[in-house]
Amino acid sequence: MAENRCVVYQGPGEVTIEDIGYPKLEVPEYVASNMGFSTQEAHHGVILRIVSTNICGSDQHMVRGRTTAPQGQTLGHEITGEVIEVGNDVQFIKEGDLCSVPFNIACGRCRACKERMTGICLNVNPERPGSAYGYVDMGGWPGGQADYVMVPFADFNLLPFPDKDQAMEKILDLTMLSDIFPTGYHGATMAGCTTGSTVYVAGAGPVGLAAAHAAQLLGAAVVIVGDAIEERLKQAESFGCVPLDITQDAAIEDQISEIMGEPIVDCVVDAVGFEARGHGSESGEAPATVLNDAMTITRAGGSIGIPGLYVTEDPGGVDEAAQRGALSMDFGLGWARSHAFYTGQCPVMQYNRELMMSILNDKAQIAKAVNAQVIPLDDAPQGYQDFDSGTSVKYVLDPHGDLQGAQRA
Amino acid sequence: MAENRCVVYQGPGEVTIEDIGYPKLEVPEYVASNMGFSTQEAHHGVILRIVSTNICGSDQHMVRGRTTAPQGQTLGHEITGEVIEVGNDVQFIKEGDLCSVPFNIACGRCRACKERMTGICLNVNPERPGSAYGYVDMGGWPGGQADYVMVPFADFNLLPFPDKDQAMEKILDLTMLSDIFPTGYHGATMAGCTTGSTVYVAGAGPVGLAAAHAAQLLGAAVVIVGDAIEERLKQAESFGCVPLDITQDAAIEDQISEIMGEPIVDCVVDAVGFEARGHGSESGEAPATVLNDAMTITRAGGSIGIPGLYVTEDPGGVDEAAQRGALSMDFGLGWARSHAFYTGQCPVMQYNRELMMSILNDKAQIAKAVNAQVIPLDDAPQGYQDFDSGTSVKYVLDPHGDLQGAQRA
Amino acid sequence: MAENRCVVYQGPGEVTIEDIGYPKLEVPEYVASNMGFSTQEAHHGVILRIVSTNICGSDQHMVRGRTTAPQGQTLGHEITGEVIEVGNDVQFIKEGDLCSVPFNIACGRCRACKERMTGICLNVNPERPGSAYGYVDMGGWPGGQADYVMVPFADFNLLPFPDKDQAMEKILDLTMLSDIFPTGYHGATMAGCTTGSTVYVAGAGPVGLAAAHAAQLLGAAVVIVGDAIEERLKQAESFGCVPLDITQDAAIEDQISEIMGEPIVDCVVDAVGFEARGHGSESGEAPATVLNDAMTITRAGGSIGIPGLYVTEDPGGVDEAAQRGALSMDFGLGWARSHAFYTGQCPVMQYNRELMMSILNDKAQIAKAVNAQVIPLDDAPQGYQDFDSGTSVKYVLDPHGDLQGAQRA
Amino acid sequence: MAENRCVVYQGPGEVTIEDIGYPKLEVPEYVASNMGFSTQEAHHGVILRIVSTNICGSDQHMVRGRTTAPQGQTLGHEITGEVIEVGNDVQFIKEGDLCSVPFNIACGRCRACKERMTGICLNVNPERPGSAYGYVDMGGWPGGQADYVMVPFADFNLLPFPDKDQAMEKILDLTMLSDIFPTGYHGATMAGCTTGSTVYVAGAGPVGLAAAHAAQLLGAAVVIVGDAIEERLKQAESFGCVPLDITQDAAIEDQISEIMGEPIVDCVVDAVGFEARGHGSESGEAPATVLNDAMTITRAGGSIGIPGLYVTEDPGGVDEAAQRGALSMDFGLGWARSHAFYTGQCPVMQYNRELMMSILNDKAQIAKAVNAQVIPLDDAPQGYQDFDSGTSVKYVLDPHGDLQGAQRA
Repeated sequence: MAENRCVVYQGPGEVTIEDIGYPKLEVPEYVASNMGFSTQEAHHGVILRIVSTNICGSDQHMVRGRTTAPQGQTLGHEITGEVIEVGNDVQFIKEGDLCSVPFNIACGRCRACKERMTGICLNVNPERPGSAYGYVDMGGWPGGQADYVMVPFADFNLLPFPDKDQAMEKILDLTMLSDIFPTGYHGATMAGCTTGSTVYVAGAGPVGLAAAHAAQLLGAAVVIVGDAIEERLKQAESFGCVPLDITQDAAIEDQISEIMGEPIVDCVVDAVGFEARGHGSESGEAPATVLNDAMTITRAGGSIGIPGLYVTEDPGGVDEAAQRGALSMDFGLGWARSHAFYTGQCPVMQYNRELMMSILNDKAQIAKAVNAQVIPLDDAPQGYQDFDSGTSVKYVLDPHGDLQGAQRA
Repeated sequence: MAENRCVVYQGPGEVTIEDIGYPKLEVPEYVASNMGFSTQEAHHGVILRIVSTNICGSDQHMVRGRTTAPQGQTLGHEITGEVIEVGNDVQFIKEGDLCSVPFNIACGRCRACKERMTGICLNVNPERPGSAYGYVDMGGWPGGQADYVMVPFADFNLLPFPDKDQAMEKILDLTMLSDIFPTGYHGATMAGCTTGSTVYVAGAGPVGLAAAHAAQLLGAAVVIVGDAIEERLKQAESFGCVPLDITQDAAIEDQISEIMGEPIVDCVVDAVGFEARGHGSESGEAPATVLNDAMTITRAGGSIGIPGLYVTEDPGGVDEAAQRGALSMDFGLGWARSHAFYTGQCPVMQYNRELMMSILNDKAQIAKAVNAQVIPLDDAPQGYQDFDSGTSVKYVLDPHGDLQGAQRA
Repeated sequence: MAENRCVVYQGPGEVTIEDIGYPKLEVPEYVASNMGFSTQEAHHGVILRIVSTNICGSDQHMVRGRTTAPQGQTLGHEITGEVIEVGNDVQFIKEGDLCSVPFNIACGRCRACKERMTGICLNVNPERPGSAYGYVDMGGWPGGQADYVMVPFADFNLLPFPDKDQAMEKILDLTMLSDIFPTGYHGATMAGCTTGSTVYVAGAGPVGLAAAHAAQLLGAAVVIVGDAIEERLKQAESFGCVPLDITQDAAIEDQISEIMGEPIVDCVVDAVGFEARGHGSESGEAPATVLNDAMTITRAGGSIGIPGLYVTEDPGGVDEAAQRGALSMDFGLGWARSHAFYTGQCPVMQYNRELMMSILNDKAQIAKAVNAQVIPLDDAPQGYQDFDSGTSVKYVLDPHGDLQGAQRA
Repeated sequence: MAENRCVVYQGPGEVTIEDIGYPKLEVPEYVASNMGFSTQEAHHGVILRIVSTNICGSDQHMVRGRTTAPQGQTLGHEITGEVIEVGNDVQFIKEGDLCSVPFNIACGRCRACKERMTGICLNVNPERPGSAYGYVDMGGWPGGQADYVMVPFADFNLLPFPDKDQAMEKILDLTMLSDIFPTGYHGATMAGCTTGSTVYVAGAGPVGLAAAHAAQLLGAAVVIVGDAIEERLKQAESFGCVPLDITQDAAIEDQISEIMGEPIVDCVVDAVGFEARGHGSESGEAPATVLNDAMTITRAGGSIGIPGLYVTEDPGGVDEAAQRGALSMDFGLGWARSHAFYTGQCPVMQYNRELMMSILNDKAQIAKAVNAQVIPLDDAPQGYQDFDSGTSVKYVLDPHGDLQGAQRA
């Protein structure tokens, strides 16, 4: 049986590579027994040999010690791979298929999945609706920054690429379909981005950049991206966005006015979440900053898309309220403007096929937008460290050396 | 092994009851081999002991010889039953569950199903998207006017009732969830029925009556129902609809004017389909009548919901064009009014849970609206004959005698 | 020139009746000069002789001193009346028309109005998008708890009733079209209420009761209404809602569980707003209570409709944050459940025609649901006082004695 | 008083330039008296000095004698101009504003306009809902291929450009906002075009090219354009579309297969209408061809957007049915595939502001896509003739010589 290396959380700031054992076609016992499965056996599952697997900003929350993740937590939920073994109730996915794996684990059989809300599947996580590979409080599904992974309900979950050779040529773009490209796109659509929209995206990390590129694909007239890190702002500028430096002491509405000629935009995307910092050169963490910015600059009647993560428990929160996920929001302002607020995990399956079509037909350049860079799986610890330092790179791990020829177009 | 009686088509005007054999947990070979299944075995399927199964107007198209159904075609797609055997990949549905079966067979794993369009599942019928139990050109899935039936992809397809005793008390309402209640509701929603709408439903057969009741549930201010049969019009009137007799020689717009004070309504539902007859006392079959009526009386900007069946092959069509499903439509009129037209099989799963909630909480009285009447399975031939004669009854077959106490409230 | 009595705010807890002068066909100078009108003359306006005009819960915020309303503020924005004078660019509304007046003043000519968002019209209030008659910070449009009122942009704003005699028979229902019936309906639709929904409405004041009745019209399976006042809960119960007493010490999710068998509902409407109180027998004001309740009991993927008013300035707020409209919200919880939040003034025009149709065709009994009661205009001060004490009555003022025969059916 | 030259229809194949007199601020007497206007005076109107005005394919239907247009019919409904006189109830539009005029004349005060359906305004045309400048059966509003034109309800109808100098630089793009760009966009959105869609547009005239460009802006992965004229197909190819030559004898589904690898696309736009011709080298007019093609190649569950004009009276129709707007449609096929059909005039106001933003921010190149070419107003007769011969040019008339510097970027 093959070794199966995986990135494992060891404590704040530390990840290592460990052999977690070759996956079995079975669901975690904790899930099966608590969620009423008739059996732990995953006749519906497949084993994937992982071709690419990315480091995600939401992994950072764990690695920075901002969650209750225990030592030994396996990591990785942005997975692309080739099917090498199929369960006996997998009907349509075949051995050899190269597939994108939505980060949301979903059963395809509950009320939420039937309503396309795969981000809140009711059957795969005893803690709450919704689950993911390699994440704290998500039911204990093994992580996918690894050599191999088991994907349950494979006919439902997997998106096979139509042509393997073509897919390998665009693998750095396609690898973004498992999470950040759909997540950014979800943020942009929730915010109402469409032809001619003016848009502000808070945060120029990979999800923010993906939201900005998605806004462009959706036809936005102007896309402004705000961040505190110069390298990230330059990355945003590199594909046509207007940078907004939040370390400046000007009020956000004045910064927007300078760009737009009015202090408002049509759409705002929060791609930052609960680890937000305040404005100005001296600011520290201020978790409601982005939400309050959004209410300040979103046009009356506009929508605010919030793909950025907000949590119910944050041991490192700035105060007692933040530690239990409570934020001081200028809700009276939002109400006066008839704002709508959309939250939650992206249901990847609502978007990934369409975005795949965009990539395969050269309409989307997501790898370039997020500055994808390939590193070996064993270099993941260094990748985590560099990413945490604010470098504007999206790290793509290459467990089996399949991506050695892959480059950004 | 138990006998399994089923209604079987023998030729125009004739059905009989035959033993078709106890169902197996396998998909039809024709489907499995042509649609790329990895195996014919239905690990995903269950066997149901059928509690109720209704005769449908669309069965009549076959029995009247208006389709290419061959002799021996098994019938029945409006099924409610109790799970008595489960495949080994059925995780959440359990033995003993009493369930409604959507008439659309759907895999839950293809693009269409993932987009909630279970009426056009891509994996279950080699002839075209979409399938059903016991229907011509639908892949050969056995009919369910029977003692037992196999339901594939059971976790996805089945709607279990929350409480069996409560369900048996309302079984005459709940049995309508497999087809006509959602189909009527689909028609009404496609037509844009909502609070305060004025609505015309063409056809007072069971689907028309279901559409009319659905329009009421959706908040319609006025619901007019048109038909040529007095008994059916009286049935519509019995639950608050306004009858419109199409055998009168007045123009439809004048009949509408007399009721509404204007010659138009907000919404039109075509619950008749291709066997439509013309207006007036002397009219014969005229397949585009209802569609042209709809364009005549739907308000500019309004929508036309078309749950009534139109076919691509009608051996009994009035002319060569009708025989290949071509109709002479007043499309210029519809265009001038910016009409929208919505067609196709109802994706039952989009509606059945919500309608079940309405029934269980006494908000919907669908059995009363369609005049449900229980008869033994063996009396199905007589039921077909009576239904064809135009009686305003919805026949519910009772294979195992479970419904002997069931009555309309 | 006729006298024009109007209700006027004199200070916390005190309103009087004053003659404010017969209205002119002109817009307030403050509005005209600041919003770029070409002229103050309202060629687009009409004068209405008011037939009915209701006291609203949002008037109470002013009268309780919870806003910055100055002494002398004229009151009243729930107006129904007969056109007695028309401007020379009023083309379609005619003298003698009996009309419902949406409380939102809207120009029908700006981007927001063209997009149907009349609650945030951009041209009628220098303070912010959106305006109303007789309200603080709304541009200074005179109040309509009066004998007469000027309605600008009358062809756009007014909803004429099709038959005056019929309308006078249902005037106690139709008078609710100016605000609370559409506002309640807006809350229910924003919350996603539809066929089969389970719904919790926070607040059994008139808007809460209207939301509850709207939820029923939209097809809800179960409507639960929460309040602290027994008389209001009984009123909710009188038309089929399930009461929930928030003065009990049980957790809201446990109270919901007791009713529903699960601690969640599909849809939540906040019809309370910023003057919310906490749960339990001893609680005082706690402005985020209803919003946090909503996140606690709304199903994952569900929507929260928030017609209840939240403000940007509350001189009487419980703490400094509340005084500037900032609330401590459990946003992490809402995010984890993928909730959507919809806020703002109801754009009455999106709903009033449809709801009128429901009333005129006996589908809606809103006067009964909110317990409408007619009093003379001169008794308005007493009505304000009684309403503030928590009585479950919706007061309808009758300036000209037209309603003396009007009774609830 | 200035002369006002206008293009006038003289009979099949013949237009001339005539002085029709300087416009007055009044609505046509025929409209005012039949539609219940209180006065013919247009206090709501403005006079525009026309800067650009385009020849439209729908003008061709008249000029080819395919409508009941009488001799003397004034022409032109694609108007851009500068406000030079304002009525006394025009509040927000100012003298000097350079504006795009939606071709639909709309009152902004009826039920349809309040619901954003300006293409079917109920108050401006005694013949039917909806109107336009210079068109048969539209109420007699004067044409705008002229020096000057009166625009009624100007605050509602006009779209002013934010900066006049900037606008004049992009005037060849902005002139397309009055009709074909929104009309093409409407077709594409009705057809469901979005990120990753595969699209077939029937017709490579200006509206078809606009629909194709709109599909690109909406994110389409592949846009195929079909026509019989080689020059038009080359024009489509010039901006990234795939041409499909309908004069080939292959079946349309086979031609699609060759391009897509499957015989279907997600979305179809009919930009041809009732003057459609059949497939193959020998075909003549066959009015249902495009609609039947659409049902043949649209994916199950897909939508068909039909901006192409279908009429209720066509004196030149190929047979008696066609002459009254009846077409032999393969409706059974469409029904079997659950197709939705969307028809009617584009409500320009739903799209023009957003498309203006796209143009002003260099996201849309519509002038290039349709090959805009400026000619003097006096050369309109030649322009009509050339356009009718099938040349792939969109003619922009320049009444006052303002466009002499204008060129496609």
